[in-house]
Amino acid sequence: MKLPVVSIVAKSGTGKTTLLEKLIRELKRRGYRVGTLKHDAHQFDIDREGKDSWRLTQAGADTMLISSPAKVAMVRQNPEGREPDVEELASAYFHDVDILLTEGFKKSGFPKIEVHRQARSPELMCRGKEKDPALIAVASDTLTDKKTELDVPVFDINAASEICDFIEAEFLS
Amino acid sequence: MKLPVVSIVAKSGTGKTTLLEKLIRELKRRGYRVGTLKHDAHQFDIDREGKDSWRLTQAGADTMLISSPAKVAMVRQNPEGREPDVEELASAYFHDVDILLTEGFKKSGFPKIEVHRQARSPELMCRGKEKDPALIAVASDTLTDKKTELDVPVFDINAASEICDFIEAEFLS
Repeated sequence: MKLPVVSIVAKSGTGKTTLLEKLIRELKRRGYRVGTLKHDAHQFDIDREGKDSWRLTQAGADTMLISSPAKVAMVRQNPEGREPDVEELASAYFHDVDILLTEGFKKSGFPKIEVHRQARSPELMCRGKEKDPALIAVASDTLTDKKTELDVPVFDINAASEICDFIEAEFLS
Repeated sequence: MKLPVVSIVAKSGTGKTTLLEKLIRELKRRGYRVGTLKHDAHQFDIDREGKDSWRLTQAGADTMLISSPAKVAMVRQNPEGREPDVEELASAYFHDVDILLTEGFKKSGFPKIEVHRQARSPELMCRGKEKDPALIAVASDTLTDKKTELDVPVFDINAASEICDFIEAEFLS
């Protein structure tokens, strides 16, 4: 079976991570194995300065891995600074999850749920001048009362359970 | 070609990470792609509390990945808490490096270089009651003057270039 990928997108500061946390918790509660992929345009620092693992990466290791009974962590430098696309990352790292939720990756063609908060912006990113055909649902704090104006289901931004019902029906059944 | 794996082992506090840093720097200088694998018996924390990536892992993601143009970082929970062995980790994560240097993994059968500092312990871990047949060299701050007593080459603990010559001759040529 092909791995289902759903992107959670929004203008910055809307609350993508908060919704993702809720969806991950709910999908885990339902017994699924869940992968998540976050895009970062900047030079993120995941490790802590001075730790052994950090020192090994700083020394120039192309791929640094820490392995323990509970988990494995990796920091890998992209060869020639070429960022892998979602498909490549999915096949390299997510072969054993039931679903992959991505944060960002607005330009990918994967099905998207847009997070919307009126106070952040009244407009939807995926329903601007050009309609994004990949939009499959909206999670909003205000748009739920005007469902008829949108061509996709609109959920309350806090209704993680309903959104998971939708994801389950669309991708996991 | 099969990936060469060399384990850097020592009693704790001897300076494994310091030697590893030097070896990684020197191998990179010589143009090799270098992977490194560190064993951690405890619950390590690679991420920083409160960061988005940390929140996604805390929410229960089985595999969490951050991708940027320069690098990719991953935190993966081991299914059923079963730690993969070195061979599994090598094939999953190190398919595109020239050599894999591991820190720890004393019980693995991979070729070992033991780091030794007299002040930490006069005895070699791999030349105790039972001789470890996987020992291929020693990097020591004192044993260099009694090479004849050991059945493997002994290098100065700071002689990263000579140790790399040895590694190159044994595994990379």
